[in-house]
Amino acid sequence: MKLVGILGGGQLARMLALASHSLGLRVRVFDPAPDAAAAAVAEHICAPWDDVAAIARFCEGLEVATLEFESVPLATALAVAAKVRLAPSVRALAATQDRLAEKQLALNLGIPATPFANIECIDDIERAARQIGFPAVLKHRTLGYDGRGQTVVRSSEEVRAAWREGGERPSLLEELVNFDRELSLVAARTTGGQIALYPLVENLHRDGILRRTIAPAPDVSNAVAAEAQRSTALLLAHLDYTGVITLEFFERDGLLLLNEIAPRVHNSGHWSIEGSETSQFENHLRAILDLPLGSTALVGCSALVNIIGILPDAERILRMPDTHLHLYGKAPRDGRKLGHVTARAPDALLLEERMKTLQQLLG
Amino acid sequence: MKLVGILGGGQLARMLALASHSLGLRVRVFDPAPDAAAAAVAEHICAPWDDVAAIARFCEGLEVATLEFESVPLATALAVAAKVRLAPSVRALAATQDRLAEKQLALNLGIPATPFANIECIDDIERAARQIGFPAVLKHRTLGYDGRGQTVVRSSEEVRAAWREGGERPSLLEELVNFDRELSLVAARTTGGQIALYPLVENLHRDGILRRTIAPAPDVSNAVAAEAQRSTALLLAHLDYTGVITLEFFERDGLLLLNEIAPRVHNSGHWSIEGSETSQFENHLRAILDLPLGSTALVGCSALVNIIGILPDAERILRMPDTHLHLYGKAPRDGRKLGHVTARAPDALLLEERMKTLQQLLG
Repeated sequence: MKLVGILGGGQLARMLALASHSLGLRVRVFDPAPDAAAAAVAEHICAPWDDVAAIARFCEGLEVATLEFESVPLATALAVAAKVRLAPSVRALAATQDRLAEKQLALNLGIPATPFANIECIDDIERAARQIGFPAVLKHRTLGYDGRGQTVVRSSEEVRAAWREGGERPSLLEELVNFDRELSLVAARTTGGQIALYPLVENLHRDGILRRTIAPAPDVSNAVAAEAQRSTALLLAHLDYTGVITLEFFERDGLLLLNEIAPRVHNSGHWSIEGSETSQFENHLRAILDLPLGSTALVGCSALVNIIGILPDAERILRMPDTHLHLYGKAPRDGRKLGHVTARAPDALLLEERMKTLQQLLG
Repeated sequence: MKLVGILGGGQLARMLALASHSLGLRVRVFDPAPDAAAAAVAEHICAPWDDVAAIARFCEGLEVATLEFESVPLATALAVAAKVRLAPSVRALAATQDRLAEKQLALNLGIPATPFANIECIDDIERAARQIGFPAVLKHRTLGYDGRGQTVVRSSEEVRAAWREGGERPSLLEELVNFDRELSLVAARTTGGQIALYPLVENLHRDGILRRTIAPAPDVSNAVAAEAQRSTALLLAHLDYTGVITLEFFERDGLLLLNEIAPRVHNSGHWSIEGSETSQFENHLRAILDLPLGSTALVGCSALVNIIGILPDAERILRMPDTHLHLYGKAPRDGRKLGHVTARAPDALLLEERMKTLQQLLG
């Protein structure tokens, strides 16, 4: 039985592990947290990221290694890649775990992205402020997720304060885009180069955390769909990418701005478990094992609502028709993603109704 | 986190365990086989059925216990039920693990079933032969599955030979029904009495092993559907049943004959993972935890083809559109169920085509 290793053992690894069994695979995760969400469904190597012996144990017997979050220390990724095939590659990881590298990649490929200025020391702030203007967002270049390491700023003063408070870490000052909506696209590419794209979906964030996703995104113009597909194809080819990748966009006046790239399965793709013929999790596994990708055809319309911070009354959710509960087995904590619910409906109108009920139930 | 115990750790327990996580549950299985298919995805108590200490360990901390096959020794079931809630109950188990009890139950409830005669000693054979006629099937009253313990017989001589060969075990002589087709119905009932029915599906057996299922069964008359539903409702109510139950029928001249009752999730319900809004596995868990049952609405048409004895070329299956591979992680062995494939299609015509391709691929 082929063994797949995953760097990181959170809910993404958990859902990858759940998808692995029916393909005849087994999963081993590497995560320093003893209560990693994936540990309940996979072998768990619990050790610090720089534990060389543990990394060696992790790699033993793996068919392929992959990752569930882009902030895996590069040294760990390199150590793994020295022993087994890592997909996506260290190069793809390096290009997406630093916001500056990500922006430069977009620039190089001609993919429109949010305007930014690099801030490496306090003296960079004035220049950045003049270049970007206000309001803006100061973002740490690395280790950001769920809105962490991001601060909205309205003056140079505020940039300096946020910069100091954040530990003077290398950051980007980005234009605060007054977007019409957020969209994302999940795609998969096999080692052999086969590509499968999920449709653009519409996302809603609050406090930096994804709250809900509608799949497919309603009213996407042909131009926007084509632009998203073009950007994705460019990126996949340039990085010789293997696995699932996610591009997050802002849509403004019918144009797309690339906001972030995630070299992994993504929260905005969880609806695919029920809403697509093949889930993003199964397609990621297929991609990294160079197996034929599964169809990404839609199965109805789907809405995903995240469960954040507080566990809901499961019974009330289960009572809703055509609604699917996914808990991650995590202890409740403020701002923590504890699970998600996917509602599926035959059409967008009915979906809208279900989503509203769901959002009420989930507060 | 609630812990569910399952007596038996085969593929049914494996798929129950895979369905458990998103409901925030964990699963522990009891199975004497060290290589039990569910062991990869659940805690595994590996001990003989009569190991009292192991049974006590199995029961510790369980919210509820259930079973994945009806041949669990009654003594084990009783020992479990003395410590934790067992669903379905020992009574339901006793009524379905002995073919004679099952037949008497059907008679009592007025559910038409295959004609039978009881054989407990060699002297019963002549009377049974006169009563049933030939051809007939000699079936062990207990421990039968996948056609084991069943022999087609054409004379009293053959009955006697089969009886001796089978170890002179209590058996039934049943009429060999010249049926038009085999149908089955999977249903779920919660402790509180909520019932959900999946549609009738059409099954094809060869050598006593299920080969393929089509869901929903094509061209079911209203009378047949009503009769199947009526029988199911009667059984569920009479047994005060909790969990998923499966009724297997023969259809002959537009009438139904009950062939077997399985007090558990069933191979002919595996299509529900993709083909129904809620799978039989999730609904079984909901039922035994007295949670609201999920919708059993169809998602397209589905065909399930079993993988038996030999592992297929996975790549060729994965290349088929809208087709879902489910491997059980079991070592190949003649006549052993190693997995199944579900093809889903928007209509019956397209499904027929996919199923043919699939059957060719799977030999």
